[in-house]
Amino acid sequence: MNRLKLASTEPKPVLVVGSVAFDNIITPHATGERILGGSASYAALAASYYAPSRLVGVVGHDFDEKYIDRFRAHGFDIEGLQRDESGPTFFWKGKYHENFNKRDTIDIQLNVFETFRPELPDNYKDSEYLMLGNIAPGLQLHVLEQVAEAKPYILADTIDLWIDIQKDELLQVVSRVDLFVINDSESEQLTGEKNIILAGQKLLKLGTKAAIIKKGEHGAYLFHPDGLFALPAYPVTKLRDPTGAGDSFAGGLLGYLAAHDDTSFKAICKAMVYATATASMTGEDFSCDRLESAGADAIQARSDELLAMTQL
Amino acid sequence: MNRLKLASTEPKPVLVVGSVAFDNIITPHATGERILGGSASYAALAASYYAPSRLVGVVGHDFDEKYIDRFRAHGFDIEGLQRDESGPTFFWKGKYHENFNKRDTIDIQLNVFETFRPELPDNYKDSEYLMLGNIAPGLQLHVLEQVAEAKPYILADTIDLWIDIQKDELLQVVSRVDLFVINDSESEQLTGEKNIILAGQKLLKLGTKAAIIKKGEHGAYLFHPDGLFALPAYPVTKLRDPTGAGDSFAGGLLGYLAAHDDTSFKAICKAMVYATATASMTGEDFSCDRLESAGADAIQARSDELLAMTQL
Repeated sequence: MNRLKLASTEPKPVLVVGSVAFDNIITPHATGERILGGSASYAALAASYYAPSRLVGVVGHDFDEKYIDRFRAHGFDIEGLQRDESGPTFFWKGKYHENFNKRDTIDIQLNVFETFRPELPDNYKDSEYLMLGNIAPGLQLHVLEQVAEAKPYILADTIDLWIDIQKDELLQVVSRVDLFVINDSESEQLTGEKNIILAGQKLLKLGTKAAIIKKGEHGAYLFHPDGLFALPAYPVTKLRDPTGAGDSFAGGLLGYLAAHDDTSFKAICKAMVYATATASMTGEDFSCDRLESAGADAIQARSDELLAMTQL
Repeated sequence: MNRLKLASTEPKPVLVVGSVAFDNIITPHATGERILGGSASYAALAASYYAPSRLVGVVGHDFDEKYIDRFRAHGFDIEGLQRDESGPTFFWKGKYHENFNKRDTIDIQLNVFETFRPELPDNYKDSEYLMLGNIAPGLQLHVLEQVAEAKPYILADTIDLWIDIQKDELLQVVSRVDLFVINDSESEQLTGEKNIILAGQKLLKLGTKAAIIKKGEHGAYLFHPDGLFALPAYPVTKLRDPTGAGDSFAGGLLGYLAAHDDTSFKAICKAMVYATATASMTGEDFSCDRLESAGADAIQARSDELLAMTQL
């Protein structure tokens, strides 16, 4: 296990529910074909640097053992990873514009995801930290029903697609979670507010106990009843493929909280530093490659570097 | 005198050289006509919250005593403010786009600025802190010649126009100053580098001892031989007119350094917090109105607020 040396206590497991996918990625500089992707893959890999990851998702008949081995190498509990032999794995094809500041979806094939319902194994039901990775809000609600009694600390993520086509379900999710994570253009789309401070305040009014708005290369803001926190991004100079950086941020953040078993305002602020450092790895190569190979020492070093360049 | 209570020692004077102007400003929401503006006006007012301001600039026959009184109210030494009765004061008309992220120059009338040469009164030549506000780089060089012996700490600011039409002179200025301040689009224009980290490194190679790249609502980066520092912006929710915010940032920053008589990396980092708070006032109303009326206590409160939301 390659884990950061942070808290003295045994880290609590992090349960990640989301997608596992094959992606085709086109950037202005290079192309990746049928590479491992999906919100749960990135998030659980990121979380595994801090705490044991438990995975709930679905893969198809084409998801070779070698991919499962990549999850096993990071100590995942994969009891909740369903295999559906009736079809191929969820597939997404996206293309980034110059400077990576916009991307278009060129193709989506739901495949086995079309009939997927996330079901938590009994062994997972004691999880105290739950990440609802980016999947349909209706499916996120189905997970929330299963943990209604256990009451874990819940982080939820989403993307613009669900604001367009499942806004009512998404608003129900937002009203029931502890920490809602969203990027700046999506927060504007959801709240109708361009100003990031006003948008953050509106997110809290929607019921989430706290919210983080991510601004990509410009950093992130935390909105919390105990205060506001702004953190610059880690200064990446070699961006290769930003896919999964948001999932990695969320997974790393929840992993850090689980490692310290602390969900206070101050703990979330510190977790954002580590989450930013973790996510900065993801963008430096296609797929989960750099995130997997980075190692705990390199992530710790970047976290220290980010602290040094932001703290007086 | 309305000055922040910072250092115990007597603050050193700040010499500001730049433009004094009348502006017509058109924003998506309102319009300001023949309002007090110019880089030196904003910078010297901002600096005066920290240290005594000395002003070098020129005004025309239409610059009424009431404007001079506004400078006097902030304790300016105006021995270096020339009055040229042969014509009107420099005039600029600009229009901001939706969201204030771009502005167009609609009209410029140089007027008395056409023949202006900044000459430092003998009394100013002992100034240890010099701000070269935004004027033609050729004029900035003329000031540098006058302080070649005194060797003050020099901050220089510029705008895109001079990169277009006086790049050689501007590069000479950059090579001879201690701190060069520029915004992100201008740094890209000057260095050819989109990535802010790489652009900052290139600025240092141009000879300035340190550089700050401002990103507007996304904060600012300091590049210095002793380290990198990133600071988020103060979260303004009521932006009315951003004209002069950059000048106010630079003036406030140099004023803070002069007040502590400290130009170390750490001092510049702390100065950026106060400069950001000071500049945030400027944008909340047309002209220098809010900057003048804000008062030291409100600027101190915003500085404290910015520290609280960025420091763990």
